[in-house]
Amino acid sequence: VKSGSSFLLAARQCEIAELEQLADTAQLVGAIGRLIHALQRERGVANIFLSSRGERFREQRERQAAESAGIEEEVHARFGALQADAVRWRHGSRLFSRVAVAVHGLEGLPALRARVAALALGADEASTAYSKLVAGLLAVVFEAADASTDPEISRALVAMFNFMQGKEYAGQERALGSRAFAAGALDDTGRQQWRHLVDAQQASFQVFADFSDPEILRAEQASRSPAVQDEVDRLRRIGCAPGVLLNPDLTARWYDTCTQRMDSLRELEVVLARHVRGLCETRIAQAHEELRDQRALVETLEAQAASGHPAPPYGPQVERSMVALLHDQSRRLQAMSDELDAVRATLNERKLVEKAKGLLMAHRQMSEDEAYKALRQMAMNQNKRLVDVASAVLSLVDVLPGGAR
Amino acid sequence: VKSGSSFLLAARQCEIAELEQLADTAQLVGAIGRLIHALQRERGVANIFLSSRGERFREQRERQAAESAGIEEEVHARFGALQADAVRWRHGSRLFSRVAVAVHGLEGLPALRARVAALALGADEASTAYSKLVAGLLAVVFEAADASTDPEISRALVAMFNFMQGKEYAGQERALGSRAFAAGALDDTGRQQWRHLVDAQQASFQVFADFSDPEILRAEQASRSPAVQDEVDRLRRIGCAPGVLLNPDLTARWYDTCTQRMDSLRELEVVLARHVRGLCETRIAQAHEELRDQRALVETLEAQAASGHPAPPYGPQVERSMVALLHDQSRRLQAMSDELDAVRATLNERKLVEKAKGLLMAHRQMSEDEAYKALRQMAMNQNKRLVDVASAVLSLVDVLPGGAR
Repeated sequence: VKSGSSFLLAARQCEIAELEQLADTAQLVGAIGRLIHALQRERGVANIFLSSRGERFREQRERQAAESAGIEEEVHARFGALQADAVRWRHGSRLFSRVAVAVHGLEGLPALRARVAALALGADEASTAYSKLVAGLLAVVFEAADASTDPEISRALVAMFNFMQGKEYAGQERALGSRAFAAGALDDTGRQQWRHLVDAQQASFQVFADFSDPEILRAEQASRSPAVQDEVDRLRRIGCAPGVLLNPDLTARWYDTCTQRMDSLRELEVVLARHVRGLCETRIAQAHEELRDQRALVETLEAQAASGHPAPPYGPQVERSMVALLHDQSRRLQAMSDELDAVRATLNERKLVEKAKGLLMAHRQMSEDEAYKALRQMAMNQNKRLVDVASAVLSLVDVLPGGAR
Repeated sequence: VKSGSSFLLAARQCEIAELEQLADTAQLVGAIGRLIHALQRERGVANIFLSSRGERFREQRERQAAESAGIEEEVHARFGALQADAVRWRHGSRLFSRVAVAVHGLEGLPALRARVAALALGADEASTAYSKLVAGLLAVVFEAADASTDPEISRALVAMFNFMQGKEYAGQERALGSRAFAAGALDDTGRQQWRHLVDAQQASFQVFADFSDPEILRAEQASRSPAVQDEVDRLRRIGCAPGVLLNPDLTARWYDTCTQRMDSLRELEVVLARHVRGLCETRIAQAHEELRDQRALVETLEAQAASGHPAPPYGPQVERSMVALLHDQSRRLQAMSDELDAVRATLNERKLVEKAKGLLMAHRQMSEDEAYKALRQMAMNQNKRLVDVASAVLSLVDVLPGGAR
């Protein structure tokens, strides 16, 4: 018969195993961030290349594609390593489904590049294809944040996911602006989309800020370049002005300024990734130390019990210490669980939006992209947050025709 | 480089591993139910033995203690088996903390029995000690229900947990009534407690019914004996009548009738445990079959791709099939996750009560038992559900003095 205290030690060992898995996830998230950054650049360059009908950025396109392909290999290696240990993975069914979508997207990348090189598709279509790829990779990061059972690391991963999402909106803005300047014009829909991308960036970076430590926020402050931001704002105003023909010579200026901004966002992302890894290491070391302390304490208690009494129950003093140990552990787990619930609430908001999108896709025969645009449009028209519009849509589920749910 | 489809298969394998772990949990829950039933009997017998100052049920007490000890060994063996594979366990840190508390409680059982045999404690105190033990074991069942990632099995486990909780209230009622009849009297507090135990049973059985299949509900209907229920009601009315001396000769009649009722509840519990195990087996077999089908499909797709094209991307038809496969998987996981959220909401109600209890313990220096009684009292006074009172208490956290949270 195993003693109660041996299960206390087993609980701690499980915690360590969970944290170690989380550390692996953090490494993966870091590698994904690197790949997303390369794909974001590739998208921006492809937009200029296609919108200028192959006149601009021919060489950059080739160079960037080669760079992305190199980073892609690293991500594939990490995915492969995860898979080797797949059945041990907590929440593995969801994580690996996300990875399957991401990897399937990457499998289509050489063909996409070939079509871009042959000028065989429009800039808009190329943008959508790259954005879908990035969305698939971000979904893996989201799942990693959702699977975390440590509230502090969860907070950091939620902050990081939202930062990456904000950066992706900034990347989409770079691509859209590049397309607009290179083509020399932008229609009403494009202008509306541009404004939305600016708002969406702000919303994501706000969640990032809400979930970040002061230390991270100082690093974020320090990474900002007011000159770059002013120039982005100036070119945005030009690009978004209604009914104006755009000067294609501003294309490179827009692309370069945005790229400076994207690169400093990427630098901060590296800081965030390092921060998450550091948290994992600290928590693992701490849990090991606590395990050692707890083991020593349990051994002392059992030795005392053995010397004074032939068998459990121990004497009143030893009993009190054991009860205190059990009580502390319960309280600590309860506190962690409460904190985790609070962090998860933010992730649930994103899930609500996904659900509302799914509902529109099923009931209105919309594509994923159309459903998202419809939600975004409702949010803009009603001046509400996306999540509030999503809740409203979901609450209508019973009155929608043909209830597929 | 691994293909997207290989990750789809890995996701399915993870699902199977999760289900197999759930099946082990279901076995454990079954064994715990058996032990709880024996401890509930021991508690009832001990109450009569102590309240009659050792005159009644001397022999039954010894026999029942021996029976419980035998079943206890089986539960210890199952706990030990879990521990052997501890670090692989999903949500292991919480599960094993609960097991630690339960096992620690069981370690004190021989001493408790010795004190009962020596008439060295009051019936009330013995009841509390046994009830605490059962609560510790039920907390393991709760954790098992909470860790399940399959909505259908979660529903069944939530139903089972609430059934076990309802049966435990019925067992506490048997013990309280036994104490009252054997002592020949009951005070106001006791009467209030009795009425609460009746309400609490009803509330738990209601949740059980809400979460059960028609098949289970039919079995539940069939297991009821109106004659036994009428006799319980009749003796309840006698026992709860204010200001009346109780006839100690009714003790055995009360105990026997309640025991008949407890035994038929136990029979239904066995049906529930078998149902949960059956669900696990069905889902595992189904997941294996789906894995086989998916594997065959992926192989076909890849063969087609290999014959028609040198490398991915596949032809448009193969690509459409792959996308459909990925899409189906995402939709299925999303549907499961939604359903799981709904099931968890019920478990969260219990957690709210636990949290409110913790708050009262911290702020009012109450014991766990006092805190629970205080919440129960508020619920009774305000004619509200326990969970609503708990929410109200938690919403006061900011205005409570000395905010320890």
